[in-house]
Amino acid sequence: MAARRTARVVDIARAAGVSPGTVSKALNNSGALRESTRDRVYRAAAELGFSPDPARRPPASRSFTVGLLSADSAGRFSIPVMLGAENALAAGQLSALLATSRNDPVREAYHVRSLVARRVDGIIVAGRTTDARPRIDVPIPVVYAFAPSSDPDDASVMPDDADGARRIVDHLLGIGRRRIVHVAGRPHQHSPRTRAEITAQAVHEAGLELAAPTLFGEWSESWGRRAVDQLLQAWRPGEPLPMDAISCGSDQIARGVCDRLRELDLRVPDEIAVTGFDDWDVMALASRPPLTTIDLRLEYLGQRAAELLLDAIDGRPHHGIELTGMELVPRASTGWS
Amino acid sequence: MAARRTARVVDIARAAGVSPGTVSKALNNSGALRESTRDRVYRAAAELGFSPDPARRPPASRSFTVGLLSADSAGRFSIPVMLGAENALAAGQLSALLATSRNDPVREAYHVRSLVARRVDGIIVAGRTTDARPRIDVPIPVVYAFAPSSDPDDASVMPDDADGARRIVDHLLGIGRRRIVHVAGRPHQHSPRTRAEITAQAVHEAGLELAAPTLFGEWSESWGRRAVDQLLQAWRPGEPLPMDAISCGSDQIARGVCDRLRELDLRVPDEIAVTGFDDWDVMALASRPPLTTIDLRLEYLGQRAAELLLDAIDGRPHHGIELTGMELVPRASTGWS
Repeated sequence: MAARRTARVVDIARAAGVSPGTVSKALNNSGALRESTRDRVYRAAAELGFSPDPARRPPASRSFTVGLLSADSAGRFSIPVMLGAENALAAGQLSALLATSRNDPVREAYHVRSLVARRVDGIIVAGRTTDARPRIDVPIPVVYAFAPSSDPDDASVMPDDADGARRIVDHLLGIGRRRIVHVAGRPHQHSPRTRAEITAQAVHEAGLELAAPTLFGEWSESWGRRAVDQLLQAWRPGEPLPMDAISCGSDQIARGVCDRLRELDLRVPDEIAVTGFDDWDVMALASRPPLTTIDLRLEYLGQRAAELLLDAIDGRPHHGIELTGMELVPRASTGWS
Repeated sequence: MAARRTARVVDIARAAGVSPGTVSKALNNSGALRESTRDRVYRAAAELGFSPDPARRPPASRSFTVGLLSADSAGRFSIPVMLGAENALAAGQLSALLATSRNDPVREAYHVRSLVARRVDGIIVAGRTTDARPRIDVPIPVVYAFAPSSDPDDASVMPDDADGARRIVDHLLGIGRRRIVHVAGRPHQHSPRTRAEITAQAVHEAGLELAAPTLFGEWSESWGRRAVDQLLQAWRPGEPLPMDAISCGSDQIARGVCDRLRELDLRVPDEIAVTGFDDWDVMALASRPPLTTIDLRLEYLGQRAAELLLDAIDGRPHHGIELTGMELVPRASTGWS
């Protein structure tokens, strides 16, 4: 980390086997240099974690190209983020170089080197979960999207899961539900934990408590079906139901919950309201009934990442994590239609 | 079309307001030219549909960058195709410039111009359906992926729907089914029509006929559920079922079919085998039972598009449509487990 701020031009020159003047020319993209020399300097600079002050880079050094480095391949989260970023970049006349690492650190390192060698003006790193990830050390601005950098000095944009969870609880309380339970995704990820914690907290702040301890499981419909059976284990038909609302950590889970409740002849939303999270159309709309859920606004998140990156390229770097708000999408599973 | 092959350097020079020598330098990327001049020449060339013989372009003109132009935004088909292409390009040390048109011709034209202005070595155009699309007129090699060009002289790669349909019928006959019906997607698209035609043909070639006329509808689970009701309209419990297999045009349809059959207490696959198409994990694996289906091998299709493009960039252009084969993925809905 410290090296990033103290590496000097002479260190890079030594590592690259060139003169300090050549390093300066290469990093400022001025003067005539062979491509191979320029690349050698960039690689040495990247390896030493040299981070030139973006404000001091002359405008002539801009390639008007930005790297989009995605951790995912066919990822449901990073792809919309990247498309939102690409859209915002295109509006600013910048082109996006696509590079997918498929969650492989070796591929990622290769792509980072080649993006730097291509002299992109900056890089957007799109993750596949909201868990923090290691920073990449390059001599150009970087913004982390969806998965934030573990270094708080970096600029990151991530979805505000707490905001989404609060909107769900407010909505359920607003339609008169008082015995809320939460069925969460995987226990060791940032998003499901945040959603679960804030759900419990928001219910508590309303002077209530969750009607049952939160159940953690996995991201699947079958987990949603099994969770219903766990929640109703002690219940017998004819008795009052132990809950009047099931808030779920994802649309997949919520769809499974609805299916199982229907199989048990329990009516959604009349007897039990159900909510999802993600607004993933093939789940939320195909569910019976269609799901009230939370739109993560991933394209907007990508757009914000592009905007922060453009600021940094223009010499106005951001630091820390920016959270993007979410939106409630009410549908039939809570009585909307 | 004709203009593309007859536009001359002098025409481009006149349109761009420069000398023929400047046009030659710009198109061959040789000699010192201002960026703005080079771009003006490229745009004039593109507008005139000038298509230089790629074999005559000197290697020095290569930017080692390829444009990936996707018709889709968060498209389920074009994204895997693009990722397969990006992967193949990265292996060949080429970078991919991402451009998404969101099915908007104005955006597409903008992106095509800007890719040409950036002097990409070629462009892969990824469509959102397999319906033929208009060609783009640019002075560099182009390969069309998923959606073929309507000009048979262009190079296109598309999935072989007939191959997939034959594999399904062979599989159903192989497990002893004789009364097969087909539930198709939208009636006016190339893929569902091909799948439906070849399904009927393959059944006919086996000395049988479809047990009912093919039903066309839409790409949804609810269409699958409704189709079951139509197929069983005249059937009464206790009577022999009118079919022993339902081949579906997509996994979404097949999932709806399975759900409705279960609601009617009909057992899949014992009484009726069900097959999907697409191998879309969230549908095929979440279905009860999981679906036997067809893997379109979209990443491979993208890889082939990249390979054809690299050939064209190296002076060995391809012409016409290359079909990529599909793969049967057997699961519980036809008795596999």
